[in-house]
Amino acid sequence: MQLALALAKEAAEDGEVPVGCVIAGPDGAVIGTGRNRRESDSDATAHAEMEAIRAACSALGSWRLTGCSLYVTLEPCPMCAGAVINARVSRLYYGAREPNSGCCGSVLNLFMERFGFEPRIEGGVCEPACSALLRSFFETRRSREVRL
Amino acid sequence: MQLALALAKEAAEDGEVPVGCVIAGPDGAVIGTGRNRRESDSDATAHAEMEAIRAACSALGSWRLTGCSLYVTLEPCPMCAGAVINARVSRLYYGAREPNSGCCGSVLNLFMERFGFEPRIEGGVCEPACSALLRSFFETRRSREVRL
Repeated sequence: MQLALALAKEAAEDGEVPVGCVIAGPDGAVIGTGRNRRESDSDATAHAEMEAIRAACSALGSWRLTGCSLYVTLEPCPMCAGAVINARVSRLYYGAREPNSGCCGSVLNLFMERFGFEPRIEGGVCEPACSALLRSFFETRRSREVRL
Repeated sequence: MQLALALAKEAAEDGEVPVGCVIAGPDGAVIGTGRNRRESDSDATAHAEMEAIRAACSALGSWRLTGCSLYVTLEPCPMCAGAVINARVSRLYYGAREPNSGCCGSVLNLFMERFGFEPRIEGGVCEPACSALLRSFFETRRSREVRL
């Protein structure tokens, strides 16, 4: 999760909502990383998890990420939770909860639906650091907006 | 939907589950197309809708596809339905129902959840042609497997 946090900080420096993601292969080696690039790429699908999943699939030469672990600083949205299901990621670790779009229980638990696949999930991993980064990003943005 | 069907046929010729997608901009012009490439790209995220949404975002230079219409031959999975929400696609038309992963009512209706965005949805568009294409693809694959 430390590497995911570093990627989230990079996103913030770029003016993006700070979210970072890392995927470890079955042997624990990093096989995919990603960070939010929605604004800079003008792409609604450019979330951290999507970039990391694509990179991990490319590294393994397979759309199946069975045995892999995904670490993300923020609870996944429906698109990213759906991609976790599609890629058969075995373990999902997330940091801060996302009350408006989180799909590990905040809005709904997508993994409890009848999609025939459910990873092992653990939330709240490095939660204080993940939440602090998001809070600081939005506070800075708000204070800039007040000054304008 | 005719163009989406043609893209789905292309996917089938490539050995992919036949799904095609087209996005029309607010003025009705085609601004994004996509087809399933999961096997050929070894990428769990390479669904028709994702490719079309990325292309449409790129064409408009914006992650917001407000005013756009998405046509897809098969009911979207959670990842693609989530991408429709993230991109604020205004209208979603789909052909065949997908009982195992469909998120417009078959497994669940993702758009009725509390994500703060709900497109206009119409299912069953050109349903006979969309379903026939899928049925034919799986029948051919099964008969090949029997022969092997």
